Amino acid sequence: MKPTVVLDIERPSPAVVDALAPFGSATVHESMNKTGLMHPYMRPIYPDAELCGTAVTVCCQPGDNLMIHAAIEACRPGDVLVVTTTSSSTDGMFGELLAVSARAHGVKGLIIEAGVRDTKVLTDMRFPVWAKAVSAKGTVKESPGWVNVPVVCAGVWIRPGDIVLGDADGVVVVPKEQAAVVAARAQERTRRENDTRARLARGELGIDIYGLRAKLRQLGVEYVER
Amino acid sequence: MKPTVVLDIERPSPAVVDALAPFGSATVHESMNKTGLMHPYMRPIYPDAELCGTAVTVCCQPGDNLMIHAAIEACRPGDVLVVTTTSSSTDGMFGELLAVSARAHGVKGLIIEAGVRDTKVLTDMRFPVWAKAVSAKGTVKESPGWVNVPVVCAGVWIRPGDIVLGDADGVVVVPKEQAAVVAARAQERTRRENDTRARLARGELGIDIYGLRAKLRQLGVEYVER
Amino acid sequence: MKPTVVLDIERPSPAVVDALAPFGSATVHESMNKTGLMHPYMRPIYPDAELCGTAVTVCCQPGDNLMIHAAIEACRPGDVLVVTTTSSSTDGMFGELLAVSARAHGVKGLIIEAGVRDTKVLTDMRFPVWAKAVSAKGTVKESPGWVNVPVVCAGVWIRPGDIVLGDADGVVVVPKEQAAVVAARAQERTRRENDTRARLARGELGIDIYGLRAKLRQLGVEYVER
Amino acid sequence: MKPTVVLDIERPSPAVVDALAPFGSATVHESMNKTGLMHPYMRPIYPDAELCGTAVTVCCQPGDNLMIHAAIEACRPGDVLVVTTTSSSTDGMFGELLAVSARAHGVKGLIIEAGVRDTKVLTDMRFPVWAKAVSAKGTVKESPGWVNVPVVCAGVWIRPGDIVLGDADGVVVVPKEQAAVVAARAQERTRRENDTRARLARGELGIDIYGLRAKLRQLGVEYVER
Amino acid sequence: MKPTVVLDIERPSPAVVDALAPFGSATVHESMNKTGLMHPYMRPIYPDAELCGTAVTVCCQPGDNLMIHAAIEACRPGDVLVVTTTSSSTDGMFGELLAVSARAHGVKGLIIEAGVRDTKVLTDMRFPVWAKAVSAKGTVKESPGWVNVPVVCAGVWIRPGDIVLGDADGVVVVPKEQAAVVAARAQERTRRENDTRARLARGELGIDIYGLRAKLRQLGVEYVER
Amino acid sequence: MKPTVVLDIERPSPAVVDALAPFGSATVHESMNKTGLMHPYMRPIYPDAELCGTAVTVCCQPGDNLMIHAAIEACRPGDVLVVTTTSSSTDGMFGELLAVSARAHGVKGLIIEAGVRDTKVLTDMRFPVWAKAVSAKGTVKESPGWVNVPVVCAGVWIRPGDIVLGDADGVVVVPKEQAAVVAARAQERTRRENDTRARLARGELGIDIYGLRAKLRQLGVEYVER
Repeated sequence: MKPTVVLDIERPSPAVVDALAPFGSATVHESMNKTGLMHPYMRPIYPDAELCGTAVTVCCQPGDNLMIHAAIEACRPGDVLVVTTTSSSTDGMFGELLAVSARAHGVKGLIIEAGVRDTKVLTDMRFPVWAKAVSAKGTVKESPGWVNVPVVCAGVWIRPGDIVLGDADGVVVVPKEQAAVVAARAQERTRRENDTRARLARGELGIDIYGLRAKLRQLGVEYVER
Repeated sequence: MKPTVVLDIERPSPAVVDALAPFGSATVHESMNKTGLMHPYMRPIYPDAELCGTAVTVCCQPGDNLMIHAAIEACRPGDVLVVTTTSSSTDGMFGELLAVSARAHGVKGLIIEAGVRDTKVLTDMRFPVWAKAVSAKGTVKESPGWVNVPVVCAGVWIRPGDIVLGDADGVVVVPKEQAAVVAARAQERTRRENDTRARLARGELGIDIYGLRAKLRQLGVEYVER
Repeated sequence: MKPTVVLDIERPSPAVVDALAPFGSATVHESMNKTGLMHPYMRPIYPDAELCGTAVTVCCQPGDNLMIHAAIEACRPGDVLVVTTTSSSTDGMFGELLAVSARAHGVKGLIIEAGVRDTKVLTDMRFPVWAKAVSAKGTVKESPGWVNVPVVCAGVWIRPGDIVLGDADGVVVVPKEQAAVVAARAQERTRRENDTRARLARGELGIDIYGLRAKLRQLGVEYVER
Repeated sequence: MKPTVVLDIERPSPAVVDALAPFGSATVHESMNKTGLMHPYMRPIYPDAELCGTAVTVCCQPGDNLMIHAAIEACRPGDVLVVTTTSSSTDGMFGELLAVSARAHGVKGLIIEAGVRDTKVLTDMRFPVWAKAVSAKGTVKESPGWVNVPVVCAGVWIRPGDIVLGDADGVVVVPKEQAAVVAARAQERTRRENDTRARLARGELGIDIYGLRAKLRQLGVEYVER
Repeated sequence: MKPTVVLDIERPSPAVVDALAPFGSATVHESMNKTGLMHPYMRPIYPDAELCGTAVTVCCQPGDNLMIHAAIEACRPGDVLVVTTTSSSTDGMFGELLAVSARAHGVKGLIIEAGVRDTKVLTDMRFPVWAKAVSAKGTVKESPGWVNVPVVCAGVWIRPGDIVLGDADGVVVVPKEQAAVVAARAQERTRRENDTRARLARGELGIDIYGLRAKLRQLGVEYVER
Repeated sequence: MKPTVVLDIERPSPAVVDALAPFGSATVHESMNKTGLMHPYMRPIYPDAELCGTAVTVCCQPGDNLMIHAAIEACRPGDVLVVTTTSSSTDGMFGELLAVSARAHGVKGLIIEAGVRDTKVLTDMRFPVWAKAVSAKGTVKESPGWVNVPVVCAGVWIRPGDIVLGDADGVVVVPKEQAAVVAARAQERTRRENDTRARLARGELGIDIYGLRAKLRQLGVEYVER
């Protein structure tokens, strides 16, 4: 419970992160038994934002970004800042200066369950951000918090070093120990979907490909004339 | 109340649909005495999405897209899938594979009072979707529902074969029997607006063109000095 | 309390408006001690919308745009329409025709705590709008209201002639008497940020530049090993 | 689409309404295959509000209660006013005076997808109301609308004379033709639940009573040690 | 813009406050031409909460209640604390201890566009509160703010010494200069409503009493057979 | 990630739970450095609901309560069911029958980030529930999930056996290892507050008791004449 900063965290190997990066958030989330997805109010600030990296976690008092400043020191190339607050806030806790600073330390992007500002500049920088809100509202630097402890961000439990992947469909968190298995499953799922896509494109019906006619019947769905 | 699928529905003639297609949702909705408009939380997944077609309606259990699969069999070229759930959900019930399948059967697009995923691919495909949310959350295929019964979608009653028209301003539903009358009124309204636009562009005031000065006076609005 | 229209308002000099225009909403809001910012649900209808001008204020009955029509007569080049309603509404109170009319009188754009429609045309016209919603829902012209009285719009008190500045991060209101001071502070803040940005880009840490290490210690934040 | 009032509607027999009245909204909704339930934001103004009657439907312009006044003339003893608006509103469209008037004509209560006011008096009168909001905001009487046409209220399609039942859990609509069947099913369901309740109270497990152990196994749920 | 505290404010005479106290928020708001009402998300913490007093205004940083503590010193018997924050917050900024302190200085109750806690004790104390949320979340005391400057609270502009009246239907603000006029109008409105209520209770129709049949006809509302 | 049920969990000793039970959620949350509090949309179904017990955690597919049935088998006297879903839902997943069953196994109450139904009966039973919604909407029993794995409920990470405490102000989670320390701190805090309360009740000011005058000055807050 005591406010703490952990500077040195355990990260999965870059190869593990790279293995997940080609997949979309939907595929990865399905490969985890439909777990790990943040709430859908987390939206990218530009439509084609994409990111896959290792989490440096931050928990702040709402309206206070002191701990984001403290977190930069813990960042290494390939990291993603994952920021949450102790209660709901839309204030713009992160903007251009923090993005410049984060990028200078190799940070790939930001996931923030709060607001972000300077979005035009961040977009020009191609610094990808998923946020709950866009807001010019500035913050203070007065209250203690946490860097690199496990946090809940947008409904998902995330530990420092876990892998976070974002795209147009949302943000998914992969526990570092599971990353290799998830990547393998995602690969397998993608291969299966390629086959299915080709059949569907030719006009075959999903209810035939997936064998759903029997299920519909068993569930009591009746085919009737209008 | 019993779960049912109707494969063969009554559609208005393509000419009737084509007559409505040139108009915007605002014009069509005004031409229906300001009725038929879905709630404004139904947003297109890309800014210039546009669509006008005949509804194939689907009602699912939340978190379950089984009945969308069943609905594809009922689709004909020119149709639009209109999907709702028996209670509120943001899950991504529709994605790339269903879009490929739907397009193979001539479906023009999707209106869904729930979530959609694979939005980047759908945008690249130019497959227009209006949805309540974007979410990577996958669904199951376990529960019965309805295809081609009247449904309420985003606050509007819609029957199979009704015409649904979407653009940047929202989604409007035109009962098939009223489509010809509505198209004629929309035509007339557009002509009137062209005249008005020209006068407004020259600097004439709306309160003069529409004769509102008398109404303001009658309502007791006073013109005062600051 | 009585419905009134004021046609002739006091505006700050164009030089004062021009002095604020180059700054972003975040910088201006910070230069006002973090005040004057509208709620973050006020979003631009296209991503690079920008505007700085003098407010003509309007207060309408929800679902009724009569007073916007009355307000156009009060507009002068450089003005911005600022519209609110007496209770919450998302109806599309403003569209293409009003935009054409407003532009004919030199209006730079619209801030509306309600809905807007014809957004595709407004975007093509490059007529910037910040709104709470996009909705095709049309309005009536039956109820009295106010033009150019002080109003509350999206949480901010604004008087006729106050300066309103909008960009991708939101909308900020500057009381006309404070505009010169705020512009000077924004200038000074921008200069300071340029220095800081250069240092951050070289990898210096914000906690060092801002002297936050002492504060973290004083607040009891502990640096611990994982 | 044209604004209309229907004064004389078809109602089911009182016996049919009385047969449904003893059941709760959950039981009735389950007996309709989980359909007919309004959105859960429809809340009673006092905790033990209960009602079962025949719908007189009203559709108003938001912020305008003219058509509620017109609807009173159509009310008969045992009716329930069901009010909606053409777009979302929280204004207090109904208060003490309308309640006094409605009660004088035998109206049992109100379902309103908007706001209600004078809630203290309505509570003292024991006049049950389910509403989206409580708001003192008054309305005008300026715009046309509809009385006794089918409407969508809080997500449910309802026709004049359909049966509406409200309690602490929400509001459910029963199409008049289905009322007898639904009452019979509700009776049967209640009997079954009485048996189950007794067994559960003795400590038997639902997974045994409902035979769910096999399903859990078949779904791949594993029982593991901590 | 500079953080300030004003200890000595101008209040209307107690007689003026007493004249408004007997009326409900709906009556008072109608007597102000339907202005002055706070957003309906401001709800009382117990159903029969009622209050009428003079405002001591407070504006805080979200998550920080320092300025409420400073405001107590400015309170006099008959005052009401009116608290807002510079951006949206639901934190429990006020609880039992502040209520004890406020009451010791004669404060009648609290209006807070944020959260409140210790609601069980406050209810037992009969200390009336209207709030946006109930939340146990505690706040810090680190950031400057304002006491007794004009603020926007829940959508309404309010100055120190203005009269604030709350009941089950919401909260309305009466500018102190207008209080006497508003009380007189409320008196007159109440008398009129007493007459109308009696007629409605006897079964007369509002459309006859208010003369609305002509208006319905003029608006084109048609009376049709089902 | 695999669906699992754990029947036998580690619980703290009853003495530890009893030590926390006398305190309110606000006091406990403050004693944990303002952590552990669920989102404020978790509201009790009756005003004086109170509960303190050990968590049996459940994670379900939205709209599906199969795993709650499985969880009852894991419950022991003193437990509290803590239920969440893999995506947002308001469906009434829990009602009278499950409450009867739970109580038969000694369960004290329910925390559910979804909907609850039969609220009148649950209130009569004095079975305390904190929920996101009240809804009659029934659920299916078709999809796998988890019992007694760590879950995120309403923004808080909670493990089986952790202590959950609810009252009128909300719900707070205490990790079982920290329970004794938190109880001691809550005791100490309560003692301090008793002293402070007495002084405040005599009219002393919080800014004097807490020594805040210096802080206000240091923060630049100016005391000014009106």
